[in-house]
Amino acid sequence: MERSDLVKPEIRSIAPYVPGKSIEEIAKKYCLSADSIIKLGSNENVLGPSPKAIDAMIKHAGNVNIYPSADAWELVVAISEYTGMPENMIVASGPGMDGLLDGLMRLLISPGDEVVISSPTFSYYEVSAIANGGTPVFVRRNDDFSIDIDTLKTAITDATKMVFICSPNNPSGNSISEQELRSIVEDVSCLVFVDEAYVEFAEQNFASLVNDYDNLIIGRTLSKAFGLAGLRIGYGIMPAWLKVEYMKAGTPFNVSSPAIVAGVAALSDKEHLNRSIELVREGRKYLADNIPFPVYDSQANFVLVDVSPVKAKDVCEHLLKQGIIVRDCTSFRDAGESLIRVTIGTLEQNRKVVDGFTSF
Amino acid sequence: MERSDLVKPEIRSIAPYVPGKSIEEIAKKYCLSADSIIKLGSNENVLGPSPKAIDAMIKHAGNVNIYPSADAWELVVAISEYTGMPENMIVASGPGMDGLLDGLMRLLISPGDEVVISSPTFSYYEVSAIANGGTPVFVRRNDDFSIDIDTLKTAITDATKMVFICSPNNPSGNSISEQELRSIVEDVSCLVFVDEAYVEFAEQNFASLVNDYDNLIIGRTLSKAFGLAGLRIGYGIMPAWLKVEYMKAGTPFNVSSPAIVAGVAALSDKEHLNRSIELVREGRKYLADNIPFPVYDSQANFVLVDVSPVKAKDVCEHLLKQGIIVRDCTSFRDAGESLIRVTIGTLEQNRKVVDGFTSF
Repeated sequence: MERSDLVKPEIRSIAPYVPGKSIEEIAKKYCLSADSIIKLGSNENVLGPSPKAIDAMIKHAGNVNIYPSADAWELVVAISEYTGMPENMIVASGPGMDGLLDGLMRLLISPGDEVVISSPTFSYYEVSAIANGGTPVFVRRNDDFSIDIDTLKTAITDATKMVFICSPNNPSGNSISEQELRSIVEDVSCLVFVDEAYVEFAEQNFASLVNDYDNLIIGRTLSKAFGLAGLRIGYGIMPAWLKVEYMKAGTPFNVSSPAIVAGVAALSDKEHLNRSIELVREGRKYLADNIPFPVYDSQANFVLVDVSPVKAKDVCEHLLKQGIIVRDCTSFRDAGESLIRVTIGTLEQNRKVVDGFTSF
Repeated sequence: MERSDLVKPEIRSIAPYVPGKSIEEIAKKYCLSADSIIKLGSNENVLGPSPKAIDAMIKHAGNVNIYPSADAWELVVAISEYTGMPENMIVASGPGMDGLLDGLMRLLISPGDEVVISSPTFSYYEVSAIANGGTPVFVRRNDDFSIDIDTLKTAITDATKMVFICSPNNPSGNSISEQELRSIVEDVSCLVFVDEAYVEFAEQNFASLVNDYDNLIIGRTLSKAFGLAGLRIGYGIMPAWLKVEYMKAGTPFNVSSPAIVAGVAALSDKEHLNRSIELVREGRKYLADNIPFPVYDSQANFVLVDVSPVKAKDVCEHLLKQGIIVRDCTSFRDAGESLIRVTIGTLEQNRKVVDGFTSF
């Protein structure tokens, strides 16, 4: 027996991990100064974190020798206030919403179980399901990235444990409607996970629907509108019965103490949140109006640009030479080779992005 | 079908999570001021974090809107310098070493697989194995908490994926010898995980043995000697072939950016590390010499006190009334009802601990 036979075959079959290029590497390759590079590839908040969150972390820095609370209850209280949902339906998670997904997959998935994923979408649903022994089943979205509800329902079988719907969807930026979501949740016996990572930038959210169903989960993050990506904070809104089970299987102490204090502070800083949302709404319109390629309507802090028949990698390379990092969506399953996701930046950054696309 | 039938039966059978009491709750219950309570129940560093780590976090606070590196490579470089082991044999992990354990379990465990655990010991090996579908097999340590190597080997079967050995062991404080460890690693075809969470306080560590074997993993943490428990940083030293597989299955971005900068700074602060170790060595001797109950020899930053025939919970309650939090080990499998684990404190704290035990 080889030692590597100890590893589960479904893991061995995954391609080796290749880390992304750092800003320093990009700067060196394209002879740019690291400071001049604009990072619009990860949908971070270009205004930075809330000043209240920064203050909270600075005050807390000397106390990091002490363990955080096992369940980040301080953050759960703050999330309850922010969302209006009760604490017994909220879990805080780390690392980020990925931690929530991992916890749910290991709670639910036995070999042979399936999850249904509406693609193209965020890739970690697939990764977490496979790593936890499950089988992902993909249902491709329509050409305009709306979900064909009937086809989705057809893919759901007795083996399905969860359906993943990202809304607003990454990378397309469109949302599911309340009517469509209710139709799915009411029709299936499995769980439905709605990833609302970008929901603060959208016109509607579905948190309160968790009151109506015992099989609906909303996933959220503080990495986007709240500007705390480095702290890796996610949360879930789920039926009370599911929180009880989740807390048995989740890794304890999974949110760090700086993340707890910063998260609590950021959730209370409505001013920074509103400024971040306003910047995104203005920037979305500016980019859609000025990028000389078709741009999809977006409810998120990014827009999706269709550069077909040109390949996305050629346009991304052109932008990189000008120090602009955006996301080539070729690695998204079912996204083709001509889509580019661009995070909304500041007005100045957005102008450079438009110049970059225009000069291609 | 009930909705809860969607949850794996092995998870449903776990008892619901009960959060520990906060300092505020204890202060209220025993009519104490929260400031006067001495927290010696979680083996934290009573000297606080490294001042260099505090500075690094304060400087970094404004940048937490940006994602950390996916693999915390900056921390891996620093761990490589600290341990002398090459980067392709090191993974950084979060949340803490628990994140490393979860990643390994989900890499290795299919239903029916077993892990062998030398008990009494740290409880998360068992929790992580069960949550990931494995079956823990317990081999009880001898009365002096040494490991019966032959009995341990007998418990290892073709179904065994990993053997867990904590050294220095939590909660007993004793270490395995190099000869014993080599004997196990050479005899088995499965992986051997040595948890060295407390190794900085010990006389010997086994990191370099990973060079000699392709089935040995060393787990470490920055929560103890380095005083960064709140940041949830762990790391693993493992054969290069295993790092390749681990990186396919681990959750990306699992170490937060404040944790990365603080961890790098703390690993370079030899002065704070040495002061922390010195304090522990002096305090261990003081507590062993002065607590009026048998105290086991310890290589860690805690001592184990045997209060038999008295029950640990009665002594712990007595100490709590005086504002001293220690760890009742009754919840450790195979530890009986008369063992108490006490973190080494400052000289002043240690005196209060001795007074507390003496007045029982």
